[in-house]
Amino acid sequence: MQEISPAPNEGTRSAQRRAAIVDAATTVFLRQGYAAASMDEVAKLAAVSKQTVYKHFRDKETLFVHIIQGMMTSADEAIGNASAALGDSADLPRDLRTLARVLLESLRKPRVLQLRRVVIGEAERFPELGRSYWNLAFQRGIDAVAKGFTQLTERGLLDTAEPGIAAHHFAGLLLWMPINQAMFCGTDDLPDDAAIDHLTEVGVTAFLAAYGR
Amino acid sequence: MQEISPAPNEGTRSAQRRAAIVDAATTVFLRQGYAAASMDEVAKLAAVSKQTVYKHFRDKETLFVHIIQGMMTSADEAIGNASAALGDSADLPRDLRTLARVLLESLRKPRVLQLRRVVIGEAERFPELGRSYWNLAFQRGIDAVAKGFTQLTERGLLDTAEPGIAAHHFAGLLLWMPINQAMFCGTDDLPDDAAIDHLTEVGVTAFLAAYGR
Repeated sequence: MQEISPAPNEGTRSAQRRAAIVDAATTVFLRQGYAAASMDEVAKLAAVSKQTVYKHFRDKETLFVHIIQGMMTSADEAIGNASAALGDSADLPRDLRTLARVLLESLRKPRVLQLRRVVIGEAERFPELGRSYWNLAFQRGIDAVAKGFTQLTERGLLDTAEPGIAAHHFAGLLLWMPINQAMFCGTDDLPDDAAIDHLTEVGVTAFLAAYGR
Repeated sequence: MQEISPAPNEGTRSAQRRAAIVDAATTVFLRQGYAAASMDEVAKLAAVSKQTVYKHFRDKETLFVHIIQGMMTSADEAIGNASAALGDSADLPRDLRTLARVLLESLRKPRVLQLRRVVIGEAERFPELGRSYWNLAFQRGIDAVAKGFTQLTERGLLDTAEPGIAAHHFAGLLLWMPINQAMFCGTDDLPDDAAIDHLTEVGVTAFLAAYGR
């Protein structure tokens, strides 16, 4: 039987080109950093013209922020869901462990960690990138967790006078060591399942001892 | 009375040149990052020949690691002293607050924060730099704190089954939020006295609730 592929319409083509640009740009940014990356290289690697790149993304910064947003969307959703479930929790230790695993998931994603490094490395020269990352990838997750903690405090299951601080403490108990290790020592030796289990266990136990009722 | 300045001997001159090289290299590394920095520029800014630079430092990596060590020496000493005092503490909350303030001190040092950013930004391309930083500037402080916590656990004042994890937790409770904020949002708006007081208070309170007896 002959395969019939539908003639791609302009909308589909444009979406494909856009995806190719984003993919190429991610590779270029992670390889060279932000400052050294050029729109020329992105266009070349995506096999489109430079005008096409600029048609989709006004400038390098817009493209980079778009990539941050894209990488963070799935993490954001997972944190949002786990935090929302937490508010209604019928088994607090179990649901805190679930949220903990979502936060520790970033340690399984070398590209997310590499992007984080690029942003930190360039934050001095391009402060607006760092601030975008802080707002999109950091503070938004903390706010979702803080909302869950507020509900739990109202229900008398946690004791958090400042839910925002408690959310930072929760993240810090889990992530301080492994994220710093990944930042400094590279992504070749990321924690395995047993290490993630242990980080979850000791982090959640300390958090509940500090903030549980 | 006539001032008599001693004729500088070769040892003094050599030490002065070495200090000038370190100072110039710090400026070059913080301005341009590690990859883009050249020994030529360091020599020029230090007003010495390139041979003189190489006489003092075998290569760029040796020079960079020397700068990390230099910046960390005073912090290391302060952490070591506060941790040692902790082991013999007669007033645990007070002495934990003292240690907390020592850890939070790094937030007052823009050059230390900038160096931290450079190391993270280059860790992918120069993993040996990142590992040096992790060992010299990170793990060494954690080890000192863990030693203090071990003594306190032996004395029945803390309950830390894994003092190394408890040390990471102590640091994470204090530093997760403000260090990340400084990494992403720059060093223009570092925490003031009131913010440091608040970070100390909430961090030490959470730690004692988690690990106190």
